[in-house]
Amino acid sequence: MMSDLIEKTIDSKVIYQGKILNLRLDTVTLPNGNTGAREIVEHSGAVAIVAITDDQKVVLVKQYRHPVGEVLLELPAGKLESGENPLQCARRELKEETGWEAAEWIELTTFYTSPGFSNEKMYLYLAKNLSYTGQKLDEDEFVQVILMTLDDAVQRVLSGEIHDSKSIAGILAAKIINK
Amino acid sequence: MMSDLIEKTIDSKVIYQGKILNLRLDTVTLPNGNTGAREIVEHSGAVAIVAITDDQKVVLVKQYRHPVGEVLLELPAGKLESGENPLQCARRELKEETGWEAAEWIELTTFYTSPGFSNEKMYLYLAKNLSYTGQKLDEDEFVQVILMTLDDAVQRVLSGEIHDSKSIAGILAAKIINK
Repeated sequence: MMSDLIEKTIDSKVIYQGKILNLRLDTVTLPNGNTGAREIVEHSGAVAIVAITDDQKVVLVKQYRHPVGEVLLELPAGKLESGENPLQCARRELKEETGWEAAEWIELTTFYTSPGFSNEKMYLYLAKNLSYTGQKLDEDEFVQVILMTLDDAVQRVLSGEIHDSKSIAGILAAKIINK
Repeated sequence: MMSDLIEKTIDSKVIYQGKILNLRLDTVTLPNGNTGAREIVEHSGAVAIVAITDDQKVVLVKQYRHPVGEVLLELPAGKLESGENPLQCARRELKEETGWEAAEWIELTTFYTSPGFSNEKMYLYLAKNLSYTGQKLDEDEFVQVILMTLDDAVQRVLSGEIHDSKSIAGILAAKIINK
């Protein structure tokens, strides 16, 4: 039975409240009655976009990711502002980061990036019918835009060059759906 | 130029050291010379396994994930012990969680689950040539094992029923490679 798996929170303590995340420490009762400790990173969620131009290129971005110390080649993405509508956020981020706007938006899927320790939810969209209206980066945002065919992007996922979860999920899902 | 994107750490402070994660607060110099704050969740990394039985079924697990408050249908997975070899860890977790052992192991890819705030790296394996030798769950681990065809798993990814990043990445990559 599914209810045999569920844990019950008996205590919850905020450790840190930050700009993009909070850290919480819960005490739970396990299905066998034992007690367990759970560390939880609270995050407001994020969006990522597989934007396909009329000549069938995917819009990717190159940016430095401090937590991993690498420049990554990724799908355009961004954090939800508290209470923000995910589709609204996806439109905004695509325009700001890449300069592209899309007339057609399709929900691909929604998933947890790392449900073992975080509640971060990623809303993944397919965007089509694109027009270029110009990038609008924040002063402190540094992003290079790169276009390539979907098959090229799939190959870069399989070779390991594209190696973050939202980009892998989005590119492979777009490829499988496109068939 | 790629070096135009890179941030330089000028201060680093440990906020929390826990059981499965640490929280660090860095101050960085941005490419334009401005200063920025970066919240980083340090994680030792994890493995996930797409294990395919001789009759072409994928081995999945159902378990409660406290950070998201849901029972998820996922690939078998587990956290790396500090310094542990990822393949060793994958063999151990597959056996313990599902009862299956594999004679053939193929590296699928390695990726970051959420590089915007965490360094968690996920090592993804394809495991074949399976034999069932019995589950070895920890006393405080509660997992249900479910077998289904790869095509069934792909459909559950596309329908949103399977909705965590490692499982989406692994199942779709296995499907695309299998073609």
